[in-house]
Amino acid sequence: MPESRIVTLTTDFGLSDPFVGIMHGVVLNIHPETTVVDISHAVHSYDLLDGALTIAQAYRFFPPRTVHVVVVDPGVGSRRRPIIVETDDHVFVAPDNGVLSLVEAREPKFSVRHITAERYFLQPVSQTFHGRDIFAPVAGWLSKGVAPTEFGPEISDYVCLPLPAVERIGSNSLRGVVLKVDKFGNLITNISQPDAPELSASPPPPFRLLIAGQTITRVCRAYAEGGEDELFAIVGSSGYLEVAARQASAAEKLGAGAETPVEVVFGL
Amino acid sequence: MPESRIVTLTTDFGLSDPFVGIMHGVVLNIHPETTVVDISHAVHSYDLLDGALTIAQAYRFFPPRTVHVVVVDPGVGSRRRPIIVETDDHVFVAPDNGVLSLVEAREPKFSVRHITAERYFLQPVSQTFHGRDIFAPVAGWLSKGVAPTEFGPEISDYVCLPLPAVERIGSNSLRGVVLKVDKFGNLITNISQPDAPELSASPPPPFRLLIAGQTITRVCRAYAEGGEDELFAIVGSSGYLEVAARQASAAEKLGAGAETPVEVVFGL
Amino acid sequence: MPESRIVTLTTDFGLSDPFVGIMHGVVLNIHPETTVVDISHAVHSYDLLDGALTIAQAYRFFPPRTVHVVVVDPGVGSRRRPIIVETDDHVFVAPDNGVLSLVEAREPKFSVRHITAERYFLQPVSQTFHGRDIFAPVAGWLSKGVAPTEFGPEISDYVCLPLPAVERIGSNSLRGVVLKVDKFGNLITNISQPDAPELSASPPPPFRLLIAGQTITRVCRAYAEGGEDELFAIVGSSGYLEVAARQASAAEKLGAGAETPVEVVFGL
Repeated sequence: MPESRIVTLTTDFGLSDPFVGIMHGVVLNIHPETTVVDISHAVHSYDLLDGALTIAQAYRFFPPRTVHVVVVDPGVGSRRRPIIVETDDHVFVAPDNGVLSLVEAREPKFSVRHITAERYFLQPVSQTFHGRDIFAPVAGWLSKGVAPTEFGPEISDYVCLPLPAVERIGSNSLRGVVLKVDKFGNLITNISQPDAPELSASPPPPFRLLIAGQTITRVCRAYAEGGEDELFAIVGSSGYLEVAARQASAAEKLGAGAETPVEVVFGL
Repeated sequence: MPESRIVTLTTDFGLSDPFVGIMHGVVLNIHPETTVVDISHAVHSYDLLDGALTIAQAYRFFPPRTVHVVVVDPGVGSRRRPIIVETDDHVFVAPDNGVLSLVEAREPKFSVRHITAERYFLQPVSQTFHGRDIFAPVAGWLSKGVAPTEFGPEISDYVCLPLPAVERIGSNSLRGVVLKVDKFGNLITNISQPDAPELSASPPPPFRLLIAGQTITRVCRAYAEGGEDELFAIVGSSGYLEVAARQASAAEKLGAGAETPVEVVFGL
Repeated sequence: MPESRIVTLTTDFGLSDPFVGIMHGVVLNIHPETTVVDISHAVHSYDLLDGALTIAQAYRFFPPRTVHVVVVDPGVGSRRRPIIVETDDHVFVAPDNGVLSLVEAREPKFSVRHITAERYFLQPVSQTFHGRDIFAPVAGWLSKGVAPTEFGPEISDYVCLPLPAVERIGSNSLRGVVLKVDKFGNLITNISQPDAPELSASPPPPFRLLIAGQTITRVCRAYAEGGEDELFAIVGSSGYLEVAARQASAAEKLGAGAETPVEVVFGL
């Protein structure tokens, strides 16, 4: 295998403890030439869907053969398996708990291996920090050129996360949900462009979005198009429909957040 | 052009979303040898002055030819232009909204180009995340050695940010304002050493600083010189006059913050 | 001296100001080939024990010859000395205030030098930001291969931090204290495996842990073993006894935090 220069880290560890720095150290101790990049460590604690969304938004912007480590791991120390996933262009290392399900949804190839080769782990393996003792070292060795096949057998019974689905209700209406609130207070829903091709029409058709008891009727192309105090819909940079406000938090204005239901109706 | 090994990022994106990690990925995808450094992603949302201050405090400590990306961009997706700025030793990539005005104030050379060469953008360009689709890729190509001249024409009508000015009131008095509160609660004012050369005299002349209804009379050289519970003035590491307290938050003690007015009087 | 590719940073500077980014810049300006890694910048302001714990948990996971910069420095600008410490495998740069005392407790070799060679400092040296003007440049030159002997004389009267000790009370009981709360709300005590070898017995002996008026009787091996709403004890990844709850904050459940006393009794 050729070397892979880049390893990314996505976790729910936060930055208030040395956990993330330690993972950098473990990777660099195995392969000092690696560039280790933090995607985010602010995944909500134990929140697999938030972790799944975070890595799915980010991985495809990295070079081919990047190794992506994703550790949102409420089952650390239990029998849940550590896995390596290969897609056409990327490699992932994660617990087998569905945190890669949104990557799977986007990739034609999704080949999963159970990591069983304990010789690549840090010894002794703690039961509380597999990010340090299993996932980071495996990423380090992958980065150094060890082939995924060396780490364990292919499996097909890996865990799939039930993802909140978008429902079509009749021909002109959709029901979805807010997936997360971003730093600016934009409400990112699970409704994506393929779910609602109408959104990409120019001009968009008449439109109503119902959320938290309010009705939004405008789709903007850019945040700056919004009026003062106006709530509007916008297709965000990851392709999901968002509810936003210009230079203000739509989440606060609406008192809405993750899991708030959303309904979209096209036509008058 | 020679390569530039280092790209820095300064944004108001925070670290709770994958936005910053994605920008690292975009740069590395174009030029994997780049070292990408985070200056700060905690610029207050949409706050151009805070962004201007952050990059102005930091850029000169980086090696010559570093490429500095600054994205505080309330007008993303509108007609505001993306620009490249060259100073004698550094290169900047930013929206044309004045966020580089404090760099301009410090540099003899400040040569600005409108980035028009869309072949260097990520396609399709979203209207909501130019950090990913325009600024990071331009930085990547600059880092790889593409000359600034390749990206677009020089312009002279770039945007200047109105910066809060220090007023001299008579011969011995200055009126300024708090620019920001740092992590330790120090109040950083816009009054700098050139505004008040008296501060560098040894010993400093008799001195009164008025802020939030209180009067401060001592200038310390080091934070540790302050007495218990004492508020004192100090020239901070970026050359601005600060109001501080030893191991405590002057901002909390005074109930003061950004935009609080400050008056300095020299003499008895 | 051979080069050292890696420099780590541990500070109480937070990430809301450009302080940390500036330190990266200073190191890279001296030695652009260095990989600068952030261990944590969330050490509590001025808290030497928290800083000591953070670096002690992390340093040994980095490659030999890594240069670790630790700046928790309430005495910046006073007469406290800057020091370089060499252990068998690592080099540290820090103020002489005891922030390396937990490293000393773990290392057979702990050789300390007073940094006096001002030619390696950034000039002029501010009295408020030695992280930028002294510690980062010294780390940069160490990384570039300058020998520790070049920076100043060996000293033996360096500062030791009084560390909270674990008391044995009789033959089967220990008294300790909570050192810190991690991101997940786990309460990390100062009681480590060598203090209480009983904890490693399999199965562990009957056990009572008293904290904040409550009694905990179970030692788990993994967080996932805990019952719903159960508080339990666990030996964490750094070898310290922790009080934890499954997917919940033990700190919140108990209203406990740093400095909360803990008592452990073995036997019935």
